[in-house]
Amino acid sequence: MQLLENLWYCAALKDEVSAKPMRRVICGMPMVFYQTEAGEPVALEDRCSHRHAPLSLGNVIDDEIHCLYHGYVFDRTGSCTHIPHQKGASANAAIRSFPIVERWGLLWVWWGDAAKSDRALIPDLSWTEAPDKRPIYIYFYVNANHQLVADNLLDVSHADYLHSSTFGSNSGQKGGAQPDSMTMETTTSDGKVNSYRKLENVTVGPLARKWGGFTKELDRVNTQMWEPPNIIHVQLELVNDENHICLNHDHIMTPETDKTTHYFMDATRDFGVENVGYPTDEDIYNEHYSVISGEDIPMIEAQQANIDLYDSLRDVPAKADRLVDDVHRLLRDLYANANLTLPPEVRRTGPV
Amino acid sequence: MQLLENLWYCAALKDEVSAKPMRRVICGMPMVFYQTEAGEPVALEDRCSHRHAPLSLGNVIDDEIHCLYHGYVFDRTGSCTHIPHQKGASANAAIRSFPIVERWGLLWVWWGDAAKSDRALIPDLSWTEAPDKRPIYIYFYVNANHQLVADNLLDVSHADYLHSSTFGSNSGQKGGAQPDSMTMETTTSDGKVNSYRKLENVTVGPLARKWGGFTKELDRVNTQMWEPPNIIHVQLELVNDENHICLNHDHIMTPETDKTTHYFMDATRDFGVENVGYPTDEDIYNEHYSVISGEDIPMIEAQQANIDLYDSLRDVPAKADRLVDDVHRLLRDLYANANLTLPPEVRRTGPV
Amino acid sequence: MQLLENLWYCAALKDEVSAKPMRRVICGMPMVFYQTEAGEPVALEDRCSHRHAPLSLGNVIDDEIHCLYHGYVFDRTGSCTHIPHQKGASANAAIRSFPIVERWGLLWVWWGDAAKSDRALIPDLSWTEAPDKRPIYIYFYVNANHQLVADNLLDVSHADYLHSSTFGSNSGQKGGAQPDSMTMETTTSDGKVNSYRKLENVTVGPLARKWGGFTKELDRVNTQMWEPPNIIHVQLELVNDENHICLNHDHIMTPETDKTTHYFMDATRDFGVENVGYPTDEDIYNEHYSVISGEDIPMIEAQQANIDLYDSLRDVPAKADRLVDDVHRLLRDLYANANLTLPPEVRRTGPV
Repeated sequence: MQLLENLWYCAALKDEVSAKPMRRVICGMPMVFYQTEAGEPVALEDRCSHRHAPLSLGNVIDDEIHCLYHGYVFDRTGSCTHIPHQKGASANAAIRSFPIVERWGLLWVWWGDAAKSDRALIPDLSWTEAPDKRPIYIYFYVNANHQLVADNLLDVSHADYLHSSTFGSNSGQKGGAQPDSMTMETTTSDGKVNSYRKLENVTVGPLARKWGGFTKELDRVNTQMWEPPNIIHVQLELVNDENHICLNHDHIMTPETDKTTHYFMDATRDFGVENVGYPTDEDIYNEHYSVISGEDIPMIEAQQANIDLYDSLRDVPAKADRLVDDVHRLLRDLYANANLTLPPEVRRTGPV
Repeated sequence: MQLLENLWYCAALKDEVSAKPMRRVICGMPMVFYQTEAGEPVALEDRCSHRHAPLSLGNVIDDEIHCLYHGYVFDRTGSCTHIPHQKGASANAAIRSFPIVERWGLLWVWWGDAAKSDRALIPDLSWTEAPDKRPIYIYFYVNANHQLVADNLLDVSHADYLHSSTFGSNSGQKGGAQPDSMTMETTTSDGKVNSYRKLENVTVGPLARKWGGFTKELDRVNTQMWEPPNIIHVQLELVNDENHICLNHDHIMTPETDKTTHYFMDATRDFGVENVGYPTDEDIYNEHYSVISGEDIPMIEAQQANIDLYDSLRDVPAKADRLVDDVHRLLRDLYANANLTLPPEVRRTGPV
Repeated sequence: MQLLENLWYCAALKDEVSAKPMRRVICGMPMVFYQTEAGEPVALEDRCSHRHAPLSLGNVIDDEIHCLYHGYVFDRTGSCTHIPHQKGASANAAIRSFPIVERWGLLWVWWGDAAKSDRALIPDLSWTEAPDKRPIYIYFYVNANHQLVADNLLDVSHADYLHSSTFGSNSGQKGGAQPDSMTMETTTSDGKVNSYRKLENVTVGPLARKWGGFTKELDRVNTQMWEPPNIIHVQLELVNDENHICLNHDHIMTPETDKTTHYFMDATRDFGVENVGYPTDEDIYNEHYSVISGEDIPMIEAQQANIDLYDSLRDVPAKADRLVDDVHRLLRDLYANANLTLPPEVRRTGPV
């Protein structure tokens, strides 16, 4: 698995990590995460240098992690500070540590050259901390390649079919209602891909109606931005003369392996921010959890299973796929510049 | 997996397919099956050309199937008739369709060149519709190569050991009763292999005795015919001066993958055809289901698991294996003529 | 999987084998075990020569095993003595038989050239039959390579961490109590590796205290011997002015596959040998079963899973690893002399 390097990959929700060590395989590398007594996150290779036992089975004492198997101890930099019954530990007993930063309710790990890590490069999710907004966070595990998960979000048209009974607009179906107009624009600049998609006068699903107390047709505006490694910021606006609500979704895909993905998201709303009566955080969490785990993930996993039956495949894109196309085009450039082998998920949509 | 082409492969029992799409992988190809409003069966590749989502997750409307992911629509020929928010769909958005015919209570798919498909080549199971006979149908899923399932039926002698307590004859066991005589003849002609095997004056198992109300020893006559791709027609006659009953079994093996098989069968009887009192259809279904899923399939799956532990193996055939030998010889010819790589299941019994 | 040959591998606890056939894959070879009417053990390849069905699904009659599939019969030497409906069986219908001996409550199979099998080479476990001692036997199945299981026992220091709350000494932990002195000696001679490790004045876990009625600190002496293929004899002595008890552990690792191991052990005590009041055999069995299945095996399996994430790894040994090092050095010689490919588990600790 070749991955884009020198980028921050999301490794965990903030609340998943505590003084008790937690194992997660990130970018194919087993990592152990824990929090120091001062509350700072630590990310180490989850493998004792001695005999490769997972350190995550051990305990953290005085901010150091003790291997449960034979008592080796490592500090937060990965240095080995104790080997039982001997004085000192050679430098080659050290294990890898990874720059890790808590930001926006998430933990970000730098994958690449640690010397190049730069907090300024952490993706901006500042709306999650805006005074008039309110976020919830969810973690999903997906049995599919991370790009298939990303493409799901990039092809926002799926909301009208897969989510037609929840928060899609039900528009564009053959023989069904068509929007008064559909606008779709995409632009790539500064290594990011932006898109704007507006459907006018559409009927949205019951969930979306409930959020804004809508009874009539409305305009549905998706403003999205993709950035590496595979992060999608979505701003969904629903507006008519009854109400105007805005929901930010950040979807952050981190590869575990070629065929499995850690999928983190927040849903940050500008309605119901008092968190009393509908919708509370719990309502928003449950709605998103049930739609994504019940509609998106089964579809993506079925798509992966189908792809695995074939030696090779080509996509047949629609005009509505401009955003997927633009992102894949950028990924092809990024992979080529980094001298990495293009993964099949991106090759499938590229030039023959 | 290389398979014999330009043949009808059984894909489903008739009653398995309805207006609601059903997925099944046939010959390594994901297929979706559904019934039109007029009651005709449709078989399409179960993969949207857009991004490879299974169409079987979608819905059939006006005889067309709608992809649940992004709303592409395909008609029963595989042509793409709708891509949301755009006019027209290019011809390269089409997916494969497969000739499919309902015959003898089963659905048959043509695997190969569609232009060569010919209903006249559907195997003859006309006894299932004979006025004085009565069929039941069963579907089994087997974790073994389809040839191992077929060989089970071709080596009919297994009935005397594996099924000695149900419908075998218990004859030929070391130290046990021997039949008064055993006749075995096989002939190959016109691409089919016929066999005749008669055991005289044997004691059959309790199930077989119950079917015919037999209390005494009887003659047990198996008349079989094998035809491609891997279909075995068995006519089992049990006869003495008390009764004469006849049971037709059609065993139809369709590969899902190299190591998994769809196994369809009918059991068509000339006794109890009034379907009141013993045996009813339900009795015959339950007896066959329990013997095959409880005795045959565990043995075949254990055989496959054993074979998988070895790099290569050779069979050591008995004289009674003439039918297996004849069928494998014919298969070697069929594979050679079609320029296909011989599967290990047939190579194992052939010339070194 | 290349393995050292011409050695006795433990295949089963004595009580696991009876007149009813039992299947177990030993050294990658499916074997069926049964006991003759005279009580002697038989080991055959668990594969009918006819079509490779497991013989273990069949029955033993008159000390011969009958294949359930088509009635072939094999005697205890592997000769085929019956093929139904034909006279005689050719010699090529024979299957492999393996020299097998019951000794010390265990069944030992000779893996290699049967002509070289020699009962005198069966490992010595004579303490299990000493009049003042009392053994119990346990079988474990481990999802890890056999060498990882052996290394667990060879690096006896793990007891002080992994088993600190059961029978370890809790000594040597960073910031914890240190023994008054630690002695470690190893010697290799005659193809066996011996070690002696003594910790003075340590606090042992509650289990070990309970065995000997200890209330104070004590000396903990491990005397071990490793011999091929992968057998470790441990003598654990716990002694102070209150008591002196001795526990023999024999740990016997037999590969099933590269990544799965049959792990047999006895625990033979010189205390509570009256088997009334604490500890009874059941107490000793339960304590060992719970510690090994609850502490050792999860650690070893997690270690294997971690190793599998990497292409290659090197161990970083501690000074306390002298015994592992000596055994691996001897294994490298044994593999080289036998012209076998060194398994990665031993390569990882060897010269670069």
